[in-house]
Amino acid sequence: MAVDYASQVLEGSPRAAARVISWLENEDDRVTPVMEALYPHTGKAAVIGITGSPGAGKSTLTDKLIQAIRDDGLTVGVVAVDPSSPFTGGAILGDRVRMSRFSTDPGVFIRSMATRGHLGGLARATADVVKVLDALGKDVVLIETVGVGQDEVDIVRLADTTCVVLVPGLGDTIQTMKAGVMEIADIFVINKADRPGADQLYTEVAHRIEQDAQMHEKDWTPPVLKTVAVEDQGVDVLWATVRDHWKYLDESGRLEARRRDRAREETLRMIHHEIFRKIHERLAADGELERIVDRIVAARESPYGVTRRIAREWLRVDDA
Amino acid sequence: MAVDYASQVLEGSPRAAARVISWLENEDDRVTPVMEALYPHTGKAAVIGITGSPGAGKSTLTDKLIQAIRDDGLTVGVVAVDPSSPFTGGAILGDRVRMSRFSTDPGVFIRSMATRGHLGGLARATADVVKVLDALGKDVVLIETVGVGQDEVDIVRLADTTCVVLVPGLGDTIQTMKAGVMEIADIFVINKADRPGADQLYTEVAHRIEQDAQMHEKDWTPPVLKTVAVEDQGVDVLWATVRDHWKYLDESGRLEARRRDRAREETLRMIHHEIFRKIHERLAADGELERIVDRIVAARESPYGVTRRIAREWLRVDDA
Repeated sequence: MAVDYASQVLEGSPRAAARVISWLENEDDRVTPVMEALYPHTGKAAVIGITGSPGAGKSTLTDKLIQAIRDDGLTVGVVAVDPSSPFTGGAILGDRVRMSRFSTDPGVFIRSMATRGHLGGLARATADVVKVLDALGKDVVLIETVGVGQDEVDIVRLADTTCVVLVPGLGDTIQTMKAGVMEIADIFVINKADRPGADQLYTEVAHRIEQDAQMHEKDWTPPVLKTVAVEDQGVDVLWATVRDHWKYLDESGRLEARRRDRAREETLRMIHHEIFRKIHERLAADGELERIVDRIVAARESPYGVTRRIAREWLRVDDA
Repeated sequence: MAVDYASQVLEGSPRAAARVISWLENEDDRVTPVMEALYPHTGKAAVIGITGSPGAGKSTLTDKLIQAIRDDGLTVGVVAVDPSSPFTGGAILGDRVRMSRFSTDPGVFIRSMATRGHLGGLARATADVVKVLDALGKDVVLIETVGVGQDEVDIVRLADTTCVVLVPGLGDTIQTMKAGVMEIADIFVINKADRPGADQLYTEVAHRIEQDAQMHEKDWTPPVLKTVAVEDQGVDVLWATVRDHWKYLDESGRLEARRRDRAREETLRMIHHEIFRKIHERLAADGELERIVDRIVAARESPYGVTRRIAREWLRVDDA
């Protein structure tokens, strides 16, 4: 039954894709055979990550970029991720507005996701959604995040090309630059570049890139682009730069290396998650977890002792 | 040997505490027996979490709060956490400045931590550092985070009382409020309250709290306080409110419930981490991981299949 959805996704059914993505969000067990069936058909889409401070105009930029990609004759899948919304559970992005704009275009599939659980769960779920969109036959997959932080970094790592969007006058430029984004940015975009402070921000970012280039030898120096997304200015240059970056990735062999790294990370993440799921299920099932908590709270056992005991009992790995 | 450090920590030695914390940061194996020895002596400190947008003035507020707590005759341990700095590895907080300010005061111990690894590692490490400061005999432990996000939420969950610091004019108030902080805040602090927009922000936050109170019945309604930390305004009221919250936690039985929840979460986290660590070590040690990646990249195996196989082979948890 479930595997039928896989063949429907492979035939390009957006309804089947939406269903599978819902299963992913809800950690529905039926999704595993589907993902396993889709997996051999993935790895074709080019993945673009778009991240940056809240208020940088990323949604508008993404919209214009979708249009530019469509104008180029390519199809697009979009996953908009909000890792900063751990409890609300709702999709807070303007995806309904967007969906209506692109709703008559079968070449565009947009989905937003709010946070699911902790422990890297969102990055894992996003990776799976990217695979669904890839298997759905989309040429390009855009991942858009709401803010910048460790979660977002984990998420945009799934991308072949990461665009970091900055904006003049938000006052947190230095903060953002400190937040490790230097290292993940393949392209810097200064959006709302018609605002005061855009030139200063440009100089600042260019200076940081130069400093960074002196410290770490790199064969791709992130370009700094200026856009005014609401007026569609600079978006064509951005799209051309993204394609340049793909060309670079491909010709330098970096694409293969990145995908290899991603396969490693992804597999470890899946193992990590699966282990937690099994341990948690087992501990919760027979009330063992509450008995353990009782003993810890009563100071009759420590979490360290419990951990050692359980690892010894449950793990078939020899202590080498 | 290592356990000697435990007794030194229990005697109040800051040098021993610093050493143990370094081991925690570096995941040094010697730390486990120390933590196990310290564990029965923890659970005494009151833990305050301070989170909020970058630029909200949290460091200054924390400094003034330290002073207020000291003026009250209590000792303080501070752990400043920066989960948004995944690559730089350095402590970017102004802790050196602070340390020099409080360096002559043996009643204050300050430590900053940058991110270690992914997959919930930082929250786990922070939980352990809090325990060390608790065992060191500090009456109050302050956890300060740089930003607001899922990592920060995981971290401040370790606290008995969470203060969410907002600031007028940053433009991301709505974003912040959406970011699930409603649910974790025990106290809202509007810092830099002498700035334009403070009253508007106050009204906005108060309105959200009211809305929230209508949706979820709660016996503690988060107060909204105004401070101007640089001028030491309102910090005494904040400290009094924190104590009110403890009184509420204690009298309502919520403190016990929170600590129980924390013991549960912490134990699960430790078990998970330990089992994953062992499996990862073993996979990496004999080159198995790279062989798996080879097969995945060559599409001869999928991460899903690998995960199932490894969970089955290495975990003695029956599929119930």
